[in-house]
Amino acid sequence: MYSGAQISLYPLSDGFVDIILGAVHSLDPYRDRLRIETDDLSTLFVGPPELVMDASRDLFVAAARSGVHCTQSALYSRGCPGETDDPICLGGVLDGPMPPLEERRARGLAAIQAAPETGQPVAAQFAYYPLGGGQHMDEIYGVIDFLKDAGTFDGAKNFCTRLRGDAGKVFATLGQAFIGFAPPGAHVTLDVTFSANSPSQTG
Amino acid sequence: MYSGAQISLYPLSDGFVDIILGAVHSLDPYRDRLRIETDDLSTLFVGPPELVMDASRDLFVAAARSGVHCTQSALYSRGCPGETDDPICLGGVLDGPMPPLEERRARGLAAIQAAPETGQPVAAQFAYYPLGGGQHMDEIYGVIDFLKDAGTFDGAKNFCTRLRGDAGKVFATLGQAFIGFAPPGAHVTLDVTFSANSPSQTG
Repeated sequence: MYSGAQISLYPLSDGFVDIILGAVHSLDPYRDRLRIETDDLSTLFVGPPELVMDASRDLFVAAARSGVHCTQSALYSRGCPGETDDPICLGGVLDGPMPPLEERRARGLAAIQAAPETGQPVAAQFAYYPLGGGQHMDEIYGVIDFLKDAGTFDGAKNFCTRLRGDAGKVFATLGQAFIGFAPPGAHVTLDVTFSANSPSQTG
Repeated sequence: MYSGAQISLYPLSDGFVDIILGAVHSLDPYRDRLRIETDDLSTLFVGPPELVMDASRDLFVAAARSGVHCTQSALYSRGCPGETDDPICLGGVLDGPMPPLEERRARGLAAIQAAPETGQPVAAQFAYYPLGGGQHMDEIYGVIDFLKDAGTFDGAKNFCTRLRGDAGKVFATLGQAFIGFAPPGAHVTLDVTFSANSPSQTG
Protein backbone atom coordinates (compact mmCIF):
# COMPACT_ATOMS: atom_id res chain seq x y z
CA MET A 1 0.00 0.00 0.00
CA TYR A 2 1.12 3.49 -0.82
CA SER A 3 -0.60 6.56 0.55
CA GLY A 4 0.18 10.22 0.78
CA ALA A 5 -0.63 13.69 -0.39
CA GLN A 6 0.65 16.66 -2.35
CA ILE A 7 -0.08 19.82 -0.33
CA SER A 8 0.27 23.45 -1.47
CA LEU A 9 -0.19 26.18 1.14
CA TYR A 10 -1.03 29.69 -0.11
CA PRO A 11 -1.16 32.65 2.30
CA LEU A 12 -2.59 35.58 0.31
CA SER A 13 -0.16 38.10 1.77
CA ASP A 14 3.07 39.89 0.90
CA GLY A 15 4.50 37.96 3.85
CA PHE A 16 3.66 34.53 2.41
CA VAL A 17 7.21 33.19 2.68
CA ASP A 18 7.45 33.86 6.44
CA ILE A 19 3.94 32.48 7.09
CA ILE A 20 4.75 29.27 5.19
CA LEU A 21 8.14 28.83 6.88
CA GLY A 22 6.53 29.40 10.29
CA ALA A 23 3.73 26.91 9.61
CA VAL A 24 6.16 24.23 8.50
CA HIS A 25 7.31 23.86 12.13
CA SER A 26 3.91 22.28 12.84
CA LEU A 27 5.12 19.26 10.85
CA ASP A 28 8.01 18.51 13.21
CA PRO A 29 6.04 15.97 15.32
CA TYR A 30 5.29 13.96 12.16
CA ARG A 31 8.77 13.81 10.64
CA ASP A 32 9.67 10.41 12.08
CA ARG A 33 6.46 8.82 10.78
CA LEU A 34 5.96 10.59 7.43
CA ARG A 35 8.30 11.17 4.52
CA ILE A 36 8.09 14.89 3.73
CA GLU A 37 9.63 16.46 0.59
CA THR A 38 9.11 19.97 -0.79
CA ASP A 39 9.61 21.46 -4.25
CA ASP A 40 8.44 24.76 -5.78
CA LEU A 41 4.87 23.51 -6.35
CA SER A 42 3.93 21.39 -3.34
CA THR A 43 5.00 19.35 -0.35
CA LEU A 44 4.75 15.57 -0.56
CA PHE A 45 3.64 13.61 2.51
CA VAL A 46 3.99 9.80 2.39
CA GLY A 47 2.67 7.66 5.23
CA PRO A 48 -0.50 6.18 6.76
CA PRO A 49 -3.54 8.10 5.44
CA GLU A 50 -4.83 9.22 8.85
CA LEU A 51 -1.44 10.74 9.76
CA VAL A 52 -1.21 12.44 6.37
CA MET A 53 -4.60 14.05 7.02
CA ASP A 54 -3.61 15.19 10.53
CA ALA A 55 -0.33 16.69 9.30
CA SER A 56 -2.08 18.63 6.53
CA ARG A 57 -4.59 19.95 9.12
CA ASP A 58 -1.84 21.16 11.46
CA LEU A 59 0.03 22.85 8.61
CA PHE A 60 -3.05 24.74 7.44
CA VAL A 61 -4.22 25.71 10.94
CA ALA A 62 -0.74 27.00 11.83
CA ALA A 63 -0.77 29.28 8.76
CA ALA A 64 -4.38 30.40 9.32
CA ARG A 65 -3.58 31.47 12.89
CA SER A 66 -1.65 34.38 11.31
CA GLY A 67 -5.08 35.88 10.63
CA VAL A 68 -4.19 36.23 6.95
CA HIS A 69 -6.51 34.82 4.26
CA CYS A 70 -4.91 31.42 3.63
CA THR A 71 -5.85 28.71 1.18
CA GLN A 72 -4.49 25.21 0.71
CA SER A 73 -4.75 22.87 -2.25
CA ALA A 74 -4.44 19.18 -1.40
CA LEU A 75 -4.40 15.96 -3.39
CA TYR A 76 -4.71 12.89 -1.13
CA SER A 77 -4.12 9.47 -2.70
CA ARG A 78 -4.13 5.88 -1.47
CA GLY A 79 -3.63 2.60 -3.28
CA CYS A 80 -2.30 4.14 -6.50
CA PRO A 81 -1.17 1.17 -8.65
CA GLY A 82 1.58 3.35 -10.16
CA GLU A 83 3.41 3.57 -6.82
CA THR A 84 5.33 0.74 -5.20
CA ASP A 85 4.40 -0.34 -1.67
CA ASP A 86 6.21 1.55 1.05
CA PRO A 87 6.63 0.24 4.64
CA ILE A 88 6.17 3.79 6.02
CA CYS A 89 2.53 3.62 4.88
CA LEU A 90 1.72 0.57 7.00
CA GLY A 91 0.37 0.52 10.54
CA GLY A 92 -2.76 2.50 9.75
CA VAL A 93 -6.48 1.78 9.75
CA LEU A 94 -6.46 0.30 6.24
CA ASP A 95 -4.40 -2.73 7.26
CA GLY A 96 -7.31 -4.68 8.79
CA PRO A 97 -10.31 -6.34 7.13
CA MET A 98 -13.14 -4.06 5.99
CA PRO A 99 -16.22 -4.09 8.25
CA PRO A 100 -19.74 -3.76 6.77
CA LEU A 101 -20.81 -0.36 5.42
CA GLU A 102 -23.14 0.45 8.32
CA GLU A 103 -20.36 -0.15 10.84
CA ARG A 104 -17.90 1.97 8.86
CA ARG A 105 -20.47 4.74 8.63
CA ALA A 106 -21.10 4.69 12.39
CA ARG A 107 -17.39 4.53 13.13
CA GLY A 108 -16.77 7.46 10.78
CA LEU A 109 -19.41 9.64 12.46
CA ALA A 110 -18.03 8.74 15.89
CA ALA A 111 -14.51 9.70 14.78
CA ILE A 112 -15.72 13.12 13.61
CA GLN A 113 -17.55 13.65 16.92
CA ALA A 114 -14.41 12.69 18.86
CA ALA A 115 -12.09 14.92 16.80
CA PRO A 116 -10.75 17.79 18.92
CA GLU A 117 -11.65 21.33 17.86
CA THR A 118 -8.82 23.68 16.91
CA GLY A 119 -10.61 27.03 17.31
CA GLN A 120 -9.94 27.79 13.63
CA PRO A 121 -13.00 27.93 11.34
CA VAL A 122 -12.40 26.79 7.75
CA ALA A 123 -14.32 26.24 4.54
CA ALA A 124 -13.44 23.51 2.07
CA GLN A 125 -14.64 21.95 -1.14
CA PHE A 126 -13.60 18.57 -2.37
CA ALA A 127 -14.05 15.91 -5.02
CA TYR A 128 -13.87 12.21 -4.10
CA TYR A 129 -12.56 9.81 -6.75
CA PRO A 130 -12.77 6.03 -6.25
CA LEU A 131 -10.85 4.89 -9.33
CA GLY A 132 -10.73 1.76 -11.40
CA GLY A 133 -14.07 0.23 -10.49
CA GLY A 134 -17.25 0.15 -12.50
CA GLN A 135 -19.38 1.39 -9.58
CA HIS A 136 -17.66 4.69 -8.89
CA MET A 137 -20.83 6.78 -8.70
CA ASP A 138 -22.27 4.37 -6.06
CA GLU A 139 -19.23 4.99 -3.87
CA ILE A 140 -19.47 8.74 -4.48
CA TYR A 141 -23.16 8.79 -3.51
CA GLY A 142 -22.35 6.64 -0.45
CA VAL A 143 -19.82 9.19 0.73
CA ILE A 144 -22.16 12.13 0.05
CA ASP A 145 -24.89 10.40 2.08
CA PHE A 146 -22.44 9.88 4.98
CA LEU A 147 -21.34 13.51 4.79
CA LYS A 148 -24.85 14.84 5.27
CA ASP A 149 -24.80 13.57 8.87
CA ALA A 150 -21.23 14.71 9.59
CA GLY A 151 -22.13 18.16 10.95
CA THR A 152 -19.74 19.84 8.51
CA PHE A 153 -21.75 19.42 5.30
CA ASP A 154 -22.27 22.76 3.59
CA GLY A 155 -23.97 21.79 0.35
CA ALA A 156 -23.21 20.32 -3.04
CA LYS A 157 -21.68 22.29 -5.88
CA ASN A 158 -21.03 21.30 -9.46
CA PHE A 159 -18.24 18.67 -9.43
CA CYS A 160 -17.61 18.90 -5.67
CA THR A 161 -19.01 19.15 -2.14
CA ARG A 162 -18.65 21.99 0.36
CA LEU A 163 -17.72 21.56 4.03
CA ARG A 164 -17.57 24.20 6.75
CA GLY A 165 -16.76 24.26 10.45
CA ASP A 166 -13.90 24.00 12.88
CA ALA A 167 -10.76 22.74 11.14
CA GLY A 168 -10.65 19.76 13.51
CA LYS A 169 -14.08 18.60 12.34
CA VAL A 170 -13.60 19.43 8.65
CA PHE A 171 -10.31 17.52 8.35
CA ALA A 172 -11.79 14.63 10.36
CA THR A 173 -14.70 14.49 7.93
CA LEU A 174 -12.34 14.36 4.97
CA GLY A 175 -10.24 11.72 6.72
CA GLN A 176 -13.27 9.49 7.21
CA ALA A 177 -14.42 10.00 3.60
CA PHE A 178 -10.91 9.07 2.49
CA ILE A 179 -10.43 5.88 4.49
CA GLY A 180 -13.98 4.71 5.33
CA PHE A 181 -15.35 4.03 1.84
CA ALA A 182 -14.11 1.89 -1.05
CA PRO A 183 -12.10 -1.24 -0.10
CA PRO A 184 -8.76 -0.91 1.79
CA GLY A 185 -6.77 -1.81 -1.34
CA ALA A 186 -8.74 0.45 -3.71
CA HIS A 187 -7.22 3.40 -5.53
CA VAL A 188 -8.91 6.44 -3.99
CA THR A 189 -8.06 10.11 -4.35
CA LEU A 190 -9.49 13.23 -2.76
CA ASP A 191 -8.92 16.71 -4.19
CA VAL A 192 -9.56 19.51 -1.74
CA THR A 193 -9.23 23.28 -1.54
CA PHE A 194 -9.32 24.82 1.92
CA SER A 195 -9.92 28.46 2.82
CA ALA A 196 -9.63 30.41 6.08
CA ASN A 197 -10.09 34.08 6.97
CA SER A 198 -11.61 34.89 3.59
CA PRO A 199 -12.95 38.44 3.24
CA SER A 200 -15.70 36.99 1.00
CA GLN A 201 -17.02 34.88 3.84
CA THR A 202 -18.96 36.40 6.70
CA GLY A 203 -19.85 33.16 8.54
CA MET B 1 -22.96 16.23 -21.96
CA TYR B 2 -21.97 18.46 -19.11
CA SER B 3 -18.54 20.01 -18.83
CA GLY B 4 -16.96 22.76 -16.82
CA ALA B 5 -14.52 23.65 -14.09
CA GLN B 6 -14.19 25.05 -10.61
CA ILE B 7 -11.35 27.60 -10.61
CA SER B 8 -9.73 29.29 -7.60
CA LEU B 9 -7.23 32.08 -8.27
CA TYR B 10 -4.77 32.94 -5.48
CA PRO B 11 -2.44 35.96 -5.79
CA LEU B 12 0.00 35.73 -2.84
CA SER B 13 -0.14 39.44 -2.11
CA ASP B 14 -1.79 41.92 0.25
CA GLY B 15 -3.44 43.26 -2.89
CA PHE B 16 -5.08 39.96 -3.82
CA VAL B 17 -8.60 41.40 -4.07
CA ASP B 18 -7.63 44.04 -6.66
CA ILE B 19 -5.56 41.54 -8.68
CA ILE B 20 -8.46 39.05 -8.77
CA LEU B 21 -11.03 41.73 -9.68
CA GLY B 22 -8.72 43.03 -12.43
CA ALA B 23 -8.12 39.55 -13.85
CA VAL B 24 -11.84 38.78 -13.95
CA HIS B 25 -12.20 41.27 -16.85
CA SER B 26 -10.32 38.74 -18.99
CA LEU B 27 -13.45 36.56 -18.82
CA ASP B 28 -15.68 39.15 -20.55
CA PRO B 29 -15.18 37.69 -24.07
CA TYR B 30 -16.43 34.31 -22.80
CA ARG B 31 -19.55 35.40 -20.95
CA ASP B 32 -21.96 34.74 -23.83
CA ARG B 33 -20.63 31.19 -24.32
CA LEU B 34 -19.88 30.06 -20.75
CA ARG B 35 -21.99 30.14 -17.61
CA ILE B 36 -19.80 31.77 -14.95
CA GLU B 37 -20.75 31.84 -11.24
CA THR B 38 -18.56 32.83 -8.28
CA ASP B 39 -18.77 32.07 -4.56
CA ASP B 40 -16.25 32.45 -1.73
CA LEU B 41 -14.29 29.31 -2.70
CA SER B 42 -14.18 29.19 -6.50
CA THR B 43 -15.61 30.28 -9.82
CA LEU B 44 -17.67 27.80 -11.82
CA PHE B 45 -17.32 27.73 -15.60
CA VAL B 46 -19.84 25.64 -17.55
CA GLY B 47 -19.49 25.21 -21.32
CA PRO B 48 -17.55 23.33 -24.03
CA PRO B 49 -14.32 21.93 -22.52
CA GLU B 50 -11.94 23.74 -24.89
CA LEU B 51 -13.53 27.12 -24.07
CA VAL B 52 -13.41 26.35 -20.34
CA MET B 53 -9.67 25.67 -20.66
CA ASP B 54 -9.06 28.89 -22.65
CA ALA B 55 -10.99 31.01 -20.15
CA SER B 56 -9.06 29.57 -17.20
CA ARG B 57 -5.80 30.32 -19.05
CA ASP B 58 -6.76 33.95 -19.71
CA LEU B 59 -7.81 34.43 -16.08
CA PHE B 60 -4.53 33.09 -14.73
CA VAL B 61 -2.32 34.93 -17.23
CA ALA B 62 -4.11 38.22 -16.49
CA ALA B 63 -3.38 37.83 -12.77
CA ALA B 64 0.22 36.68 -13.34
CA ARG B 65 0.95 39.78 -15.45
CA SER B 66 0.83 41.72 -12.16
CA GLY B 67 4.26 40.21 -11.49
CA VAL B 68 2.99 38.88 -8.15
CA HIS B 69 3.44 35.21 -7.26
CA CYS B 70 0.06 33.79 -8.32
CA THR B 71 -1.30 30.27 -8.06
CA GLN B 72 -4.51 28.74 -9.35
CA SER B 73 -6.30 25.58 -8.34
CA ALA B 74 -8.53 24.07 -11.01
CA LEU B 75 -10.85 21.09 -11.21
CA TYR B 76 -11.95 20.37 -14.80
CA SER B 77 -14.74 17.84 -15.34
CA ARG B 78 -16.60 16.43 -18.32
CA GLY B 79 -19.27 13.77 -18.61
CA CYS B 80 -20.08 13.66 -14.88
CA PRO B 81 -23.15 11.38 -14.58
CA GLY B 82 -24.31 13.42 -11.58
CA GLU B 83 -24.95 16.49 -13.76
CA THR B 84 -27.79 16.87 -16.25
CA ASP B 85 -26.95 17.65 -19.88
CA ASP B 86 -26.71 21.35 -20.64
CA PRO B 87 -27.05 22.83 -24.17
CA ILE B 88 -24.34 25.42 -23.39
CA CYS B 89 -21.81 22.54 -23.32
CA LEU B 90 -22.53 21.47 -26.90
CA GLY B 91 -20.77 22.63 -30.05
CA GLY B 92 -17.32 21.49 -28.96
CA VAL B 93 -14.84 18.91 -30.13
CA LEU B 94 -16.44 16.08 -28.13
CA ASP B 95 -19.63 16.08 -30.24
CA GLY B 96 -18.16 14.11 -33.14
CA PRO B 97 -17.14 10.45 -33.36
CA MET B 98 -13.81 9.48 -31.75
CA PRO B 99 -10.95 8.91 -34.23
CA PRO B 100 -8.31 6.20 -33.60
CA LEU B 101 -5.76 6.82 -30.84
CA GLU B 102 -2.86 7.57 -33.20
CA GLU B 103 -4.89 10.25 -34.97
CA ARG B 104 -5.96 11.82 -31.66
CA ARG B 105 -2.38 11.83 -30.47
CA ALA B 106 -1.13 13.54 -33.67
CA ARG B 107 -3.99 16.02 -33.56
CA GLY B 108 -3.23 16.80 -29.91
CA LEU B 109 0.45 17.47 -30.57
CA ALA B 110 -0.45 19.68 -33.57
CA ALA B 111 -2.87 21.67 -31.40
CA ILE B 112 -0.16 22.31 -28.82
CA GLN B 113 2.26 23.40 -31.53
CA ALA B 114 -0.35 25.76 -32.98
CA ALA B 115 -1.29 27.26 -29.60
CA PRO B 116 -0.22 30.93 -29.40
CA GLU B 117 2.34 31.88 -26.76
CA THR B 118 1.31 34.38 -24.11
CA GLY B 119 4.76 35.52 -22.93
CA GLN B 120 3.92 34.29 -19.41
CA PRO B 121 5.93 31.30 -18.12
CA VAL B 122 4.05 28.99 -15.75
CA ALA B 123 4.58 25.74 -13.90
CA ALA B 124 1.78 23.27 -13.24
CA GLN B 125 1.13 19.87 -11.79
CA PHE B 126 -1.93 17.79 -12.48
CA ALA B 127 -3.67 14.50 -11.93
CA TYR B 128 -5.79 12.96 -14.69
CA TYR B 129 -8.77 10.83 -13.64
CA PRO B 130 -10.71 8.77 -16.19
CA LEU B 131 -13.52 7.50 -13.97
CA GLY B 132 -15.89 4.58 -14.06
CA GLY B 133 -13.98 2.23 -16.34
CA GLY B 134 -11.95 -0.80 -15.41
CA GLN B 135 -8.94 0.32 -17.45
CA HIS B 136 -8.21 3.64 -15.81
CA MET B 137 -4.45 3.11 -15.47
CA ASP B 138 -4.21 2.34 -19.24
CA GLU B 139 -5.78 5.71 -20.03
CA ILE B 140 -3.51 7.43 -17.50
CA TYR B 141 -0.39 5.85 -19.00
CA GLY B 142 -1.65 6.75 -22.50
CA VAL B 143 -1.90 10.39 -21.51
CA ILE B 144 1.51 10.37 -19.82
CA ASP B 145 3.06 8.89 -22.97
CA PHE B 146 1.44 11.63 -25.07
CA LEU B 147 2.66 14.31 -22.66
CA LYS B 148 6.29 13.31 -23.03
CA ASP B 149 6.24 14.61 -26.62
CA ALA B 150 4.27 17.76 -25.83
CA GLY B 151 7.27 20.03 -25.18
CA THR B 152 5.88 21.04 -21.77
CA PHE B 153 6.55 17.81 -19.84
CA ASP B 154 8.57 18.52 -16.70
CA GLY B 155 8.67 15.13 -15.01
CA ALA B 156 6.51 12.82 -12.95
CA LYS B 157 5.87 13.27 -9.23
CA ASN B 158 4.04 11.09 -6.78
CA PHE B 159 0.32 11.19 -7.70
CA CYS B 160 0.74 13.80 -10.46
CA THR B 161 2.72 15.11 -13.45
CA ARG B 162 4.61 18.38 -13.79
CA LEU B 163 4.38 20.73 -16.79
CA ARG B 164 6.38 23.87 -17.47
CA GLY B 165 6.53 26.45 -20.24
CA ASP B 166 4.66 29.35 -21.75
CA ALA B 167 1.10 29.47 -20.42
CA GLY B 168 -0.25 29.12 -23.96
CA LYS B 169 1.52 25.78 -24.37
CA VAL B 170 0.87 24.47 -20.84
CA PHE B 171 -2.89 25.11 -20.99
CA ALA B 172 -3.01 23.69 -24.54
CA THR B 173 -1.31 20.53 -23.26
CA LEU B 174 -3.85 20.18 -20.46
CA GLY B 175 -6.69 20.84 -22.90
CA GLN B 176 -5.52 18.04 -25.17
CA ALA B 177 -5.07 15.63 -22.24
CA PHE B 178 -8.60 16.52 -21.12
CA ILE B 179 -10.44 16.05 -24.44
CA GLY B 180 -8.16 13.78 -26.49
CA PHE B 181 -8.19 10.61 -24.36
CA ALA B 182 -11.02 8.48 -22.97
CA PRO B 183 -14.24 8.35 -25.06
CA PRO B 184 -16.27 11.55 -25.71
CA GLY B 185 -19.00 10.44 -23.29
CA ALA B 186 -16.64 9.28 -20.51
CA HIS B 187 -16.45 10.88 -17.09
CA VAL B 188 -13.03 12.53 -16.98
CA THR B 189 -11.62 14.99 -14.47
CA LEU B 190 -8.35 16.87 -14.30
CA ASP B 191 -7.05 18.45 -11.08
CA VAL B 192 -4.40 21.07 -11.61
CA THR B 193 -2.42 23.58 -9.60
CA PHE B 194 -0.71 26.39 -11.54
CA SER B 195 2.08 28.66 -10.35
CA ALA B 196 3.66 31.80 -11.83
CA ASN B 197 6.36 34.18 -10.60
CA SER B 198 7.34 31.87 -7.73
CA PRO B 199 10.39 32.97 -5.73
CA SER B 200 11.23 29.25 -5.32
CA GLN B 201 11.62 28.85 -9.05
CA THR B 202 14.64 30.22 -10.91
CA GLY B 203 13.85 28.80 -14.38
